[in-house]
Amino acid sequence: VENLTFKNPTASILIIGNEILSGYTKDANLYFLSNQLFEMGIDLLEVRIVRDDVQKIAENVIVLSKKHTYLFTTGGIGATHDDVTVEAIAKAFGVELELNKSVVSLLRDYYKESFNENRKRLAFIPREAHLIENSISHVPSFYIENVYVFAGMPNIMQAMFLGIKDSLKKGQPFFVKEIKTHFLEGDIAHILTFVQNKYESIELGSYPFYEPDNRGVNLILKSRDQEAVQKAFDELSSLLQQDASNNQG
Amino acid sequence: VENLTFKNPTASILIIGNEILSGYTKDANLYFLSNQLFEMGIDLLEVRIVRDDVQKIAENVIVLSKKHTYLFTTGGIGATHDDVTVEAIAKAFGVELELNKSVVSLLRDYYKESFNENRKRLAFIPREAHLIENSISHVPSFYIENVYVFAGMPNIMQAMFLGIKDSLKKGQPFFVKEIKTHFLEGDIAHILTFVQNKYESIELGSYPFYEPDNRGVNLILKSRDQEAVQKAFDELSSLLQQDASNNQG
Repeated sequence: VENLTFKNPTASILIIGNEILSGYTKDANLYFLSNQLFEMGIDLLEVRIVRDDVQKIAENVIVLSKKHTYLFTTGGIGATHDDVTVEAIAKAFGVELELNKSVVSLLRDYYKESFNENRKRLAFIPREAHLIENSISHVPSFYIENVYVFAGMPNIMQAMFLGIKDSLKKGQPFFVKEIKTHFLEGDIAHILTFVQNKYESIELGSYPFYEPDNRGVNLILKSRDQEAVQKAFDELSSLLQQDASNNQG
Repeated sequence: VENLTFKNPTASILIIGNEILSGYTKDANLYFLSNQLFEMGIDLLEVRIVRDDVQKIAENVIVLSKKHTYLFTTGGIGATHDDVTVEAIAKAFGVELELNKSVVSLLRDYYKESFNENRKRLAFIPREAHLIENSISHVPSFYIENVYVFAGMPNIMQAMFLGIKDSLKKGQPFFVKEIKTHFLEGDIAHILTFVQNKYESIELGSYPFYEPDNRGVNLILKSRDQEAVQKAFDELSSLLQQDASNNQG
């Protein structure tokens, strides 16, 4: 497709935490991050969820950070024994954890006489990492190369992401058109195939809903080529209308 | 740990769908499945989310089905061009898709004169797969070896899972105790480390919450060894109480 040869950034997310896999906690970070990345024109291609296990986290950090422009991790960066993300990131990059003096002084200022050995652990970050501000609970996180390490608590994760958002490389924006219908997929699949094949630069998604009194399908036309989205939308709308008239007649 | 040498089944989930990665749809299947598996004593160790891409799906099916007792997939099994999960599963197992006569007759009975070429596509399933009933929208799914293929729509996915649930191998049950506190993690991390180190057969998780007027941490003690959970719970409760008294005194 002309004008679209520019390579857009890609991303992956690694969600870390036994509590997500055991069903104790409902993840709320994927939905936020996927929407943010979509709006920025960054292609989120892959998400993984793993346990609080140094080896597993490190393995996945290595694989995902090599495959994508950005890897975002959530979870496992607190002050307790089950927070092992920081150690795993250091292991993945083969770097040491180092007591970061500016984090120490930041935590000392904030916690005052409550700054103790437990909290000192929060100041150990991988050598060569850069800090990410935490405007909520004041314990900063960090990024190293293309790996951004966020807290698991949604309010803190969101503040951290919004803090670094402007420093990320944006992609060309997506253009989206939506058609909500009460057709059933099986009645219109051939029309969708026709439109998808004709407009190769768009991605046509078909998302059915099936409730007792409300059945149908939401059709999403998505592309970085705005004109193609509009043309495909017009043609699809017209074909669906013809089909509806034919079935009534 | 004695009596716990029995190998418990493990599981992974592969969530399939561009709509989840683009943020258009909020996944609701992980939370349901993770809770079901936890109640059954099955260890959910890994989740991945990938695009509707035959090659990517097949690669992940191969990796995850080899590593775990069960792999559950959700999404990508409808009647439209963007539903490629069935093709990918067949590719992963190196088997052909085959027109399944009992699915054809089931769909013909249900759809009657609306049974068309689009819907006939739904009757192609991998050779040697076994059907999974769909009490909601009547299009069955299937499992092949240890891979269970579910719809993406939560109501249908849940009906499918509940339909095959009793045929899955259960693990030894988990026992869980929870302590909700208003301590901050940094004030009690050393106590948690002590308890975790003393009771190796339990998993002690520390899940902070941090809102302007409500800060604290939920502590979860989890194990297949009920007695160990109770002992660890008693000791942790007592240590936290002592700590609170000390700080007041």
